[in-house]
Amino acid sequence: MGIDRTYTDALALRDALAKGETSVADTAEGYLTRITAVEPDIGAFAWYDADHIRRQAEAMDNMRQAGRPIGPLHGVPVALKDVIDTARIPTENGTPLDAGRVPRIDADLVKRLKSAGALIMGKTVSTELAFMQPSTTRNPHDPNRTPGGSSSGSAAAVSAGMVPLAVGTQTGGSVIRPASFCGTTGFKPTFGAISTQGALVQSPSLDTMGVFARTPREAALICDVLFAPEQNGVPVPPPGLLRTVMAGAPLPPIFACLQMPGSERADPQTLAAIAELGAALGEQAFDITLPDLFAKAEAERRRINLAEMARCYHAYATRGGLSEAITEAIAEGNTILARDYIAALDWPKLLNAMLDEVFQRCDAILCPAALGPAPGRETTGDPRFNGIWTLCGTPAVTIPILEVDGMPLGVQLIGPRGGDARLLRTAQWLYDWIDTAGETA
Amino acid sequence: MGIDRTYTDALALRDALAKGETSVADTAEGYLTRITAVEPDIGAFAWYDADHIRRQAEAMDNMRQAGRPIGPLHGVPVALKDVIDTARIPTENGTPLDAGRVPRIDADLVKRLKSAGALIMGKTVSTELAFMQPSTTRNPHDPNRTPGGSSSGSAAAVSAGMVPLAVGTQTGGSVIRPASFCGTTGFKPTFGAISTQGALVQSPSLDTMGVFARTPREAALICDVLFAPEQNGVPVPPPGLLRTVMAGAPLPPIFACLQMPGSERADPQTLAAIAELGAALGEQAFDITLPDLFAKAEAERRRINLAEMARCYHAYATRGGLSEAITEAIAEGNTILARDYIAALDWPKLLNAMLDEVFQRCDAILCPAALGPAPGRETTGDPRFNGIWTLCGTPAVTIPILEVDGMPLGVQLIGPRGGDARLLRTAQWLYDWIDTAGETA
Repeated sequence: MGIDRTYTDALALRDALAKGETSVADTAEGYLTRITAVEPDIGAFAWYDADHIRRQAEAMDNMRQAGRPIGPLHGVPVALKDVIDTARIPTENGTPLDAGRVPRIDADLVKRLKSAGALIMGKTVSTELAFMQPSTTRNPHDPNRTPGGSSSGSAAAVSAGMVPLAVGTQTGGSVIRPASFCGTTGFKPTFGAISTQGALVQSPSLDTMGVFARTPREAALICDVLFAPEQNGVPVPPPGLLRTVMAGAPLPPIFACLQMPGSERADPQTLAAIAELGAALGEQAFDITLPDLFAKAEAERRRINLAEMARCYHAYATRGGLSEAITEAIAEGNTILARDYIAALDWPKLLNAMLDEVFQRCDAILCPAALGPAPGRETTGDPRFNGIWTLCGTPAVTIPILEVDGMPLGVQLIGPRGGDARLLRTAQWLYDWIDTAGETA
Repeated sequence: MGIDRTYTDALALRDALAKGETSVADTAEGYLTRITAVEPDIGAFAWYDADHIRRQAEAMDNMRQAGRPIGPLHGVPVALKDVIDTARIPTENGTPLDAGRVPRIDADLVKRLKSAGALIMGKTVSTELAFMQPSTTRNPHDPNRTPGGSSSGSAAAVSAGMVPLAVGTQTGGSVIRPASFCGTTGFKPTFGAISTQGALVQSPSLDTMGVFARTPREAALICDVLFAPEQNGVPVPPPGLLRTVMAGAPLPPIFACLQMPGSERADPQTLAAIAELGAALGEQAFDITLPDLFAKAEAERRRINLAEMARCYHAYATRGGLSEAITEAIAEGNTILARDYIAALDWPKLLNAMLDEVFQRCDAILCPAALGPAPGRETTGDPRFNGIWTLCGTPAVTIPILEVDGMPLGVQLIGPRGGDARLLRTAQWLYDWIDTAGETA
């Protein structure tokens, strides 16, 4: 299932479109051809319409020809997880309960993308209400494996070359895990860096918007548009992500190789591949473990997730017709006591105080993005290597630089809250270093 | 129990101290004389020490004589509710469980007061853990009546002229209610305007620092020092409260006279006095009612309060020895479900959206500060006219301009979040107008 695109790099494409070396119409046709060829086997889209894409492309080309100013993503195709509201376009949240639902107003991040001139390609498949019930989307690398969840379609669409960029969401591990399984870069920024307004609310203390791209620098391209630095209550990531990434690391970055809590459940080949990478990095890497407290963090994250989900999905649950998996999770959420929920909300402060010390000594924490390569389609995979970072609100990025069992496997890097630009720069350094060194897997 | 002070006005005192017309030592002795005379009958202080006060006074006078710069509260006496941590001074939180507890570090607001040159007079009595169990403090206007709670001592100390200014806290109605009962001005600023760091945490979503003074303009004097505009997540009140209050209202303010939910439980004389005030204000006042939703707001506030208190006071509850009142409240808090707690946290958004419309049409909402004058000492009074404003995070001020049954009764004014300066200006206008017009009660 080789990928054949004129511009495989969103940055090169963006530049070519800005210079007029290619038109938005030609770009759209190129991607439509690719979608027509592979979408029937993958099922990444919940909704797309060739006419809708062509109309946007025509309008953008006209705008450019009329000499009107173009945005930083002029004509660059972007797909949106189907839990993100789009005006006059179906947004069905992965459940038949929302069949035919068409929002009147764009989510904040969609407004930003449109202002920047992005070509909205369509809506990508989400698992049911962005929870754990597997969707019908297939992994582009092996149709019998899961693409991961809950941002199944966004990961698969970028992986299969149907779009260069896509947006997803993560409440447990819904960006990093599918990116790892599908072999794309996945980036979950600092909590609050991208507005969640207008996206499905599952768990307000955890819901985080994220992106899929081929490389970290392409993730920076779209995040420069998506980041809303006016968000309050969280460290504000500095603007100019792409500029920072392109400037390159002033010194070779230092990685803290982390033995994740729960590693005993991980695939041994995966752990070996990560260990090999750490060894290859030589003096740029050192091993760390985290205090025992971190082993309990995923249970606390889950408590917050289920309690808030029980509140937020109350109306869905009342209507009935949800899967057994989510029905049981909501039932569990309904029994959680306020005092335990409030206690769980205190954990990020404590964990981040410990992490801040680690980040004094390294550029990024390095660990596997998932327990192993993508499992079969009866599951969306285990989020336990991702949930801690969602709970802590720290930025996390996975880059597709390893391979196990013929399948891609992501290396996950974690940075301090607000350190998004530097984290992407470090990730791009590692991505390029692997290319050059070719020393591992 | 007449009050005999050289300077009854904290502003006049501040100016005299700044100009050197009086020394801090003389000021301290004046207030110490007053404390010695009336404190045995009132019991407003949990801790004070004449030597501690005299040492501070001497140091401040020396500082001034040495020509070193003095702060905006140089030498002005301030008392602190005994739930606010003070370095090397007992802070016992109104419970024998904290007997002998001496913090090593000042609370944020104490640091600010000390930097501003305030003379820390001592710690005032709080009810048990700032909840509902009556303290031993007596109302200066009638020893058989409650001073209100939970900031019992701060209200009584200002009322009895033992200090010109005091700091308290409000989670339900613990500033406004005792101020009303004791006949002082009480001011609860916008939620978050004064740092709660270093104060007893009962309910982080509700806990608000507040002040007691003779007049709104004196409340502005101390709040200019206490306000920490770097607090995030809430509208930032503009600085320069005193400047705004002293500049005066450019136009006669407009008051929205509110029939509070729960008014059927109020003392008829109190409602009549408020109605008379509204009538006297003529075209400057109009009547409003609020949607039915507001009638349920106090129950939602209580749900948040008890759930968070169960979490925050868990260690106290485990040790035993708390009153029946708080033990029962904690037991109730322990049964509250997370989903109901989370749902309650959504209420302020909804209520504030409705209030914002009211504030388009008036300078302040006007309502009674309490159900009536201070009741007997078996209770601290009913907070139902205060809790809504604590839940909404709106600034509230009560001014002692009415009298019922020979006891003071406060008129409560409410402004929009962040509108603290204007609210105090409006309150000072009403305070002065009553003096001039003398038309009501």
